Amino acid sequence: MGNPTAAMLVIGDEILSGRTRDANMHHLAGELTGHGVDLKEVRVVSDDHAAIVSALNDLRRAWDVVFTSGGIGPTHDDITADAIADAFGLGIDVRDDARAILAAHYARSGTKLNPARLRMARIPDGATLIDNPVSAAPGFTVENVHVMAGVPAIFQAMVASVLPRIIGGAPVLSRSVRIERGEGDIAGPLSALAAAHPDLSLGSYPFQGPNGRYGSNVVLRGSDAQALQTAVDALLAAFPEARE
Amino acid sequence: MGNPTAAMLVIGDEILSGRTRDANMHHLAGELTGHGVDLKEVRVVSDDHAAIVSALNDLRRAWDVVFTSGGIGPTHDDITADAIADAFGLGIDVRDDARAILAAHYARSGTKLNPARLRMARIPDGATLIDNPVSAAPGFTVENVHVMAGVPAIFQAMVASVLPRIIGGAPVLSRSVRIERGEGDIAGPLSALAAAHPDLSLGSYPFQGPNGRYGSNVVLRGSDAQALQTAVDALLAAFPEARE
Repeated sequence: MGNPTAAMLVIGDEILSGRTRDANMHHLAGELTGHGVDLKEVRVVSDDHAAIVSALNDLRRAWDVVFTSGGIGPTHDDITADAIADAFGLGIDVRDDARAILAAHYARSGTKLNPARLRMARIPDGATLIDNPVSAAPGFTVENVHVMAGVPAIFQAMVASVLPRIIGGAPVLSRSVRIERGEGDIAGPLSALAAAHPDLSLGSYPFQGPNGRYGSNVVLRGSDAQALQTAVDALLAAFPEARE
Repeated sequence: MGNPTAAMLVIGDEILSGRTRDANMHHLAGELTGHGVDLKEVRVVSDDHAAIVSALNDLRRAWDVVFTSGGIGPTHDDITADAIADAFGLGIDVRDDARAILAAHYARSGTKLNPARLRMARIPDGATLIDNPVSAAPGFTVENVHVMAGVPAIFQAMVASVLPRIIGGAPVLSRSVRIERGEGDIAGPLSALAAAHPDLSLGSYPFQGPNGRYGSNVVLRGSDAQALQTAVDALLAAFPEARE
């Protein structure tokens, strides 16, 4: 309750066409939950300037912090940095500090810093750089928006460097109870339990066991360990076949 | 090029908390691409009435067709059907045809059709039912919105029954060329190729090979097989190390 809120903007035709299965949303969701930040909304949009600007402006105004993924590489379809600058009404150009990072990186491998690679040094005016320990090309932060790469290894490294800068709330604790009965059998008592514990979030997720019969995983979430224990005990008492 | 456009709305706290990794977006994306429908946007929102109503109204007005996933089961956190009815300004109640489907299903297994299960027969006025061959409880269609279950096996079965009703455009053809060079090396020629083929979509996706060196997968998409062939030939000619 009162935790900071977050949103994620995933940018990429390859996700929407089904070519690539996004991995970054699931990673970020887990990291934020552990850090006490509530992920409230995710949007996936195509590599389209107007679509990125519009979604970003919605999300940065609605939630405390926004993370973007994808579209900051060297090729013609990497248009995220310019779209972010536009969304904030900022200028954008190759910046000396970013250029120096790239120049040092490519000098080490004897690779030419050509005009395409130099595009990765285009940074909106006033943005703070995000370290990229994997392939050097930096992400950046503008106000409450953190702009990161889509390659999962780089995305994860950037999340790790950004998260400590964000002040999280109480980490959400989670308990899970498995009940070998279908959701239709447990819904009544579960609803009463949810009403009795407005401080907790109770979710029910069906599964089908190897015998073909349905069961339910009930997930209880909250920041108060004692309240969680009380609710778990009540659930175990209500259903003899329940196991945590 | 003139294909119908689509959006997806994923509803569920379990995705946003990181507990569950969504599988339905990737499945739907692939199915739509094969059917000649362009998926343009995906949103993930929590089990919150206002959030579902607001996102659904945005998406159904912006795109030709919308698919939702999740929140139509028997438990207290399944609030999608009521939110959809609200978004359209429709009444909602247990409907006879949906009740008959559930009654027949549970009679076969000797299970009681209790009040919780009966919630799954709540259908907005005038909606068309979507068949659920897995667990009977139907999805439904209101105007351009198809409301489906979140359990992947059920979601996939519902997509299979809804897709033939949607008139798709030309299926998007896709060719993929692997080049053992980093994106920074190919970006210049690739940008020129994209400019020469405005009818095609060219995307570049970096990968890191087992030797630690970066390579690029270039994906070319379009509905004209001959135009695709011409562009693939040009790419193979430009980079001797390229392989399709």
